[in-house]
Amino acid sequence: MPKPAIKTAKPSSRRSPCPVSCALDIFGDRWTLLVIRDLILGRNRFKDFLASPEGIPTNILTDRLKRLLERSIVTQVSSSESSKHLAYQLTEKGHALLPIVKAMKDWGLTWEKGTRAGLMTAT
Amino acid sequence: MPKPAIKTAKPSSRRSPCPVSCALDIFGDRWTLLVIRDLILGRNRFKDFLASPEGIPTNILTDRLKRLLERSIVTQVSSSESSKHLAYQLTEKGHALLPIVKAMKDWGLTWEKGTRAGLMTAT
Repeated sequence: MPKPAIKTAKPSSRRSPCPVSCALDIFGDRWTLLVIRDLILGRNRFKDFLASPEGIPTNILTDRLKRLLERSIVTQVSSSESSKHLAYQLTEKGHALLPIVKAMKDWGLTWEKGTRAGLMTAT
Repeated sequence: MPKPAIKTAKPSSRRSPCPVSCALDIFGDRWTLLVIRDLILGRNRFKDFLASPEGIPTNILTDRLKRLLERSIVTQVSSSESSKHLAYQLTEKGHALLPIVKAMKDWGLTWEKGTRAGLMTAT
């Protein structure tokens, strides 16, 4: 019986070799970096991401987690709550996104009135 | 005759007060930060942005520049080539996006094989 194919990250749909462009090919949307933010803050289950204040739709969350798994930015582990439930955690590649999220946080706090980082502490 | 209304940045469609979320409300897409990248690199005319290797469609470029002007991230100036032609330049708020673009460049170079920053030098 053949082994199931392991999905690997593919640079298939790159618009250019520019690293900024390639990064945006992966997370250039309104939602992906919010999932990364949540993971940085210690939220790690599907229902945690759904509970974040931005209200990510279920189908978009499913799609973004699938892409992040395919790109080896997150990995699946057993939830600490129950071995039956899966949780997500950042890989080394995923943790390396922290400076991007941090820079966005700093920019937002400085330039967008009324933003508050207090909501970003782990719950 | 009434003065034309001056467009100001409005936090109208925010998903939450989180600064990361608010930042992504503005530039959470595949194209906006590429225009910012180009401006950082000294490209400043509409035709310069169109000539970048990612091939931004004209209608998307028009829309993104309009949004960036409304958000006071870019401003319009006379082109150095001709006083009849307009160019764009980053405001202080726009320049403040540099750490985000730089962090994405560093991440892409480290984690996405085959990316090259050489294309990012000003032309």
